[in-house]
Amino acid sequence: MNIYDIAELAGVSIATVSRVVNDSPKVSEKTKAKVRAIMEENHYTPNVFARGLGLNSMKTVGIICPDVSDDYMAGSVAYLEKSLRTYGYDCILYCSGYQYQDKVNAVELILKKRIDALLLVGSNYAGDGEETSTKYIAKAAREVPVFLINGYIHCQGVYCVLSDNYQIMYDTVSALTEAGRKRILFLYDSKSYSAAEKMRGYEDALRDNDLPIRKELEIFEQNKILKVRDRLLAEKGLEFDAVVASDDGMAVGAVKYARKKGLSVPEDVNIIGFNNSELAVCCEPELSSIDSRSEVLCKTAVDSMMMALSGHPVRHKKIIPCCFIKRRTTDF
Amino acid sequence: MNIYDIAELAGVSIATVSRVVNDSPKVSEKTKAKVRAIMEENHYTPNVFARGLGLNSMKTVGIICPDVSDDYMAGSVAYLEKSLRTYGYDCILYCSGYQYQDKVNAVELILKKRIDALLLVGSNYAGDGEETSTKYIAKAAREVPVFLINGYIHCQGVYCVLSDNYQIMYDTVSALTEAGRKRILFLYDSKSYSAAEKMRGYEDALRDNDLPIRKELEIFEQNKILKVRDRLLAEKGLEFDAVVASDDGMAVGAVKYARKKGLSVPEDVNIIGFNNSELAVCCEPELSSIDSRSEVLCKTAVDSMMMALSGHPVRHKKIIPCCFIKRRTTDF
Repeated sequence: MNIYDIAELAGVSIATVSRVVNDSPKVSEKTKAKVRAIMEENHYTPNVFARGLGLNSMKTVGIICPDVSDDYMAGSVAYLEKSLRTYGYDCILYCSGYQYQDKVNAVELILKKRIDALLLVGSNYAGDGEETSTKYIAKAAREVPVFLINGYIHCQGVYCVLSDNYQIMYDTVSALTEAGRKRILFLYDSKSYSAAEKMRGYEDALRDNDLPIRKELEIFEQNKILKVRDRLLAEKGLEFDAVVASDDGMAVGAVKYARKKGLSVPEDVNIIGFNNSELAVCCEPELSSIDSRSEVLCKTAVDSMMMALSGHPVRHKKIIPCCFIKRRTTDF
Repeated sequence: MNIYDIAELAGVSIATVSRVVNDSPKVSEKTKAKVRAIMEENHYTPNVFARGLGLNSMKTVGIICPDVSDDYMAGSVAYLEKSLRTYGYDCILYCSGYQYQDKVNAVELILKKRIDALLLVGSNYAGDGEETSTKYIAKAAREVPVFLINGYIHCQGVYCVLSDNYQIMYDTVSALTEAGRKRILFLYDSKSYSAAEKMRGYEDALRDNDLPIRKELEIFEQNKILKVRDRLLAEKGLEFDAVVASDDGMAVGAVKYARKKGLSVPEDVNIIGFNNSELAVCCEPELSSIDSRSEVLCKTAVDSMMMALSGHPVRHKKIIPCCFIKRRTTDF
């Protein structure tokens, strides 16, 4: 049931339905009562969509990301802005940082602007799995439709478009084990939804290939090349014959580590990054990496948003497959 | 002479001066006449500042950059947004692309929003030196104060904060010649103001060190690592013993070229990038690069903007010195 159905059942235009939703004085009380009755009968709750019909809209979308100087987020914001503009929408950008309270504040502040919808970029908004950690998003979704880029929350009014991080990590780690690699290091820099999905794919692949899950091979570190290199150099007795990382920067750190230790890449150690950024090309040898197809993700999110804003039903969760880009740090 | 002086001379509050400027009906015609007379006597043209006093302000700044997925621009937008938010200002972001007409359109569109000031990021807005190419910016500056990040236009109401690209390039090329390098390649990817300044520094340094300026050693290419590598491989009979590039990505392309050709870095060829990005650290050997101190640039721009918006005089041009970060692709 969408706004078009309500309009048809009530025998009025969708503009009229929208005006009723917005309680516009231009509509007679009689018509309002009729439309409202039909909405109630059909359990139609239009609040979050009504703004998008142009009657009460600033044609503005709020975008929040933790840090737009991050490669992945910058790329996403660029795609989103471009895509939104083709639909005639402007963007208000907030960079919230990574702290919980700062994210809550950013969402609260941006909702005070007259935005038609909210885009949250990066899975740092998806919370830690506890419902309380995403309550602020659920609250926002009661005011405007919320689109989550590369994160997942089960919540009404929140639409999620995400990379299939679990599957690609499962496939990649499986391929490594099939090629004979036994001690596969997992490098990650975040406890976000997507990082957790990557780790789940990593662990499931090990389990299904009869390899033990060793917690000492799951290393959490800042996503900085030299930080990762030095962290690995500092670990005593750590042995591994492959590395999968949640970001290219971390994988490059592992390549730098291998060089310092005199290990050959890919012979002694296979190394795989994530996001297929310019760092992968810069690295020597060039880094095999996973392309999360951020451009497709962003375009899908914006197309879905436009459907939602025009009152059409939109799927709650859309998953975009990733692909493996083979370069010279792997030999399978 | 600023708005505070006018207020004092007229014996009214600055809020009243602002209301006069905005022709508010809340101010009597008598007071308007008095304030206007004092403004005229003192040759005070307050138009572009008056909005910032909060009476008619949305506390919103427009930011336009060609492409926020570019490393340098993403970093700048992140710093600007953060800095503006500490002053309680929001950002509307437009990515204009690089084409002249698209830039004109972006500025026109963003001015239709109620912005207090406009930030143009990157020297692509500074034009080619012809006055006609920046007329659209001069026009914008009659509506709101315009701040140009890393570009320079001589125009009323346009405030420029820029890196000293000329000087650092002059110093760097001079240091290379003093270390005995004779054929210094200059790689650039843009005809923007800052690229032109870098080239001017390069040429002046050669001239002052009695070396010829060879046009075949000034190579224009896209800022993509592999494009630059392949371009250099395709050049027949090109010889050089040093490279200075207008961006780290191009310099990394030169490092990749040297590797393909079996040249030692830095022994056979010194290579220097620009912007001191994560690519410089990723590169093998790690890339010497020029830090343009973009964070300082952005903070200076926002601080100046707040001065301007509160009616204080602001210097038309502020120059931030760059610094050379020595890593392992140079030996002087």
